Amino acid sequence: MSATEQTAVMPFGTLQPPRRYLFGPGPSMVHPRVYEALSKPIVGHLDPYFIQVMGDIQQFLKTAFGTQDGATLVISGTGSAGMEAAVANFVEPGTKFAIFANGYFSDRLTEMAKRHGANVVRFEKAWGETYTDDEAKEFIRREKPKVVGYVHAETSTGALQSGRTICDAAHEVGALVIGDCVTSLGGVPVEFDRTGIDIAYSCTQKGLSCPPGLSPMAMSQRAMEFLRARTIPSRSWYLDLKLIHDYSTVSHRYHHTAPISMFYALREALSVIAEEGIENRWERHRRCNKLFVKGVEGMGLSMHVPAEHRIATLNTVCVPAGVDEAKIRKHLLDGPGIEIAGGFGPLAGKVFRIGLMGPLATEDNVQFFLQEFNKALRAQGHSI
Amino acid sequence: MSATEQTAVMPFGTLQPPRRYLFGPGPSMVHPRVYEALSKPIVGHLDPYFIQVMGDIQQFLKTAFGTQDGATLVISGTGSAGMEAAVANFVEPGTKFAIFANGYFSDRLTEMAKRHGANVVRFEKAWGETYTDDEAKEFIRREKPKVVGYVHAETSTGALQSGRTICDAAHEVGALVIGDCVTSLGGVPVEFDRTGIDIAYSCTQKGLSCPPGLSPMAMSQRAMEFLRARTIPSRSWYLDLKLIHDYSTVSHRYHHTAPISMFYALREALSVIAEEGIENRWERHRRCNKLFVKGVEGMGLSMHVPAEHRIATLNTVCVPAGVDEAKIRKHLLDGPGIEIAGGFGPLAGKVFRIGLMGPLATEDNVQFFLQEFNKALRAQGHSI
Repeated sequence: MSATEQTAVMPFGTLQPPRRYLFGPGPSMVHPRVYEALSKPIVGHLDPYFIQVMGDIQQFLKTAFGTQDGATLVISGTGSAGMEAAVANFVEPGTKFAIFANGYFSDRLTEMAKRHGANVVRFEKAWGETYTDDEAKEFIRREKPKVVGYVHAETSTGALQSGRTICDAAHEVGALVIGDCVTSLGGVPVEFDRTGIDIAYSCTQKGLSCPPGLSPMAMSQRAMEFLRARTIPSRSWYLDLKLIHDYSTVSHRYHHTAPISMFYALREALSVIAEEGIENRWERHRRCNKLFVKGVEGMGLSMHVPAEHRIATLNTVCVPAGVDEAKIRKHLLDGPGIEIAGGFGPLAGKVFRIGLMGPLATEDNVQFFLQEFNKALRAQGHSI
Repeated sequence: MSATEQTAVMPFGTLQPPRRYLFGPGPSMVHPRVYEALSKPIVGHLDPYFIQVMGDIQQFLKTAFGTQDGATLVISGTGSAGMEAAVANFVEPGTKFAIFANGYFSDRLTEMAKRHGANVVRFEKAWGETYTDDEAKEFIRREKPKVVGYVHAETSTGALQSGRTICDAAHEVGALVIGDCVTSLGGVPVEFDRTGIDIAYSCTQKGLSCPPGLSPMAMSQRAMEFLRARTIPSRSWYLDLKLIHDYSTVSHRYHHTAPISMFYALREALSVIAEEGIENRWERHRRCNKLFVKGVEGMGLSMHVPAEHRIATLNTVCVPAGVDEAKIRKHLLDGPGIEIAGGFGPLAGKVFRIGLMGPLATEDNVQFFLQEFNKALRAQGHSI
């Protein structure tokens, strides 16, 4: 380094992120081993070692999604890129697409589908509600769509929608099913094969305890056949699943330069999960969820979603009357460095969204959170 | 950790990437400080600290792109996602799109534009050739397109296309210009404002010495006006530049969950560049390029592109008669762990593609490479 270079100024100072406890809906806390993986030296995107890393991830993902016959792969974009990949590849212009619309992410799915030229029909429900088996069947049998979309774990509301009946009814009428598993994968059972989902997409930054940046996907054999039979290419080249599947699984022919470091991170995150055992992990999240609900109910607060439809990893707690939820969030962030989220859309100001995912889903952490949450509510004048 | 968890198997072993010298066209060698940045604890995508990180990056990018008035932002996908963002936002269905087609990436641009419904006209040249001012003017004046696309530094051929006349002629007929700067940004001058580019996209894994995963973009005021005036939304929601610009620069309203760790890495990579000084960095690459060319010519080899049109950071060296380039590449990878690339398309088997970017662009590293390259050629029976 020359003398001039040594004295050059550093315009923006050192990168020194504050330490946060990520108790929000995601990104969630990252496992220390995943940070280590991120700092490993990269290889090329066509390097035999990287091909192996992609293969390992596809294997691990089969367990996480719960599929034996399905194809798994990873989109080089966040969960929303996975959503758009599902739409761009399986919803052709003019396709009738039936959406179970009970939250923000089914609205996003609707918006994407419309941009891709779909004929969207929606079954609207209030944010936080779910669909009974009879409702699901009746809607699908009446509409006879080509594609059905539902959100398994709705991040904006905290509601978990069972997919079994939706998939059965969809297959009866010959439709493919897109299941949004962004918030469920790695935290609560997805059971891709058992449920009968055809296309599932997720993210890395929630149940998998990895930073955001990639979108893992699973596709049934039925979905793969649809892809193979498709004659007009997807409107998106970057998200063309035929090309991505070929690069990552079949020929390993160059499509794009995959984000190597993020793939390292995802492999490590999945490896951590495999070591714990996915069932153990689900059980740990369930246990912490019960403890959490007991705690907030003990504080006189109530949950937005009925017990039988809650997502174990993402809790929507009703904001008590007279409390300004934004102030509580600011108090938690500025004080103990805890991030939680508020509601938005119809739930703006009405709920706190509190995640208990991965490394934070321990009894100690739940207690720590409840104490700080209690303090914050008191500090804002709420008597408990 | 419980006893069962401790004894759980680790199905795929430890992540232990081999150490590679990335002398290919990208990904290139990552600066050690960037790896450090990757392992810093993440914050949320709406955290005030992250908003600051995005702002810092936008500032740094102005210098790297060479723009004062242009808007800069980052796409949460690789360089190809940046390409698709340019097409999806500025090439509406039916738009006449004139493409200077002299390599693989102009073909990719063509493919994306067709999928987005454009009316593409191409000015074809052999891979490795460039366009004179007169040719550029004549093509644009004759075709009178709405959008013009060209590749500044063509990774598949090693040719650098000057954009000044293309941009002038395009503006004369009222067209916007998309410039592919994937291989140039950070390694050779882009000069966005001076050239008159309207939309430029790049990647992180070449001239910026950061792992792949993001696509930095710059847009002129003219491009921003077009975006604002657009009434039909882009077919891509994930790559909708109006929404991304709003999230990253204006309201910071949630669009998608940005890849936090990759943004840390990009900020650090840009900080390293700012400390060196972008002009010093270009000069360093130019110096190493001269040394490299002298070296390979001394070995009796010749360059595919004439001296005045070469990319300083990416060299295409002709494969000597009788040499199997795949064997040379394998020899280099299996032996010293050096990655270089071969040609493809019309240049398959005809060129080596050798990158000298970032940390590898030093005189020592050029010498090291030349020695190993020489050995590999001799080992394959080529007499020098």
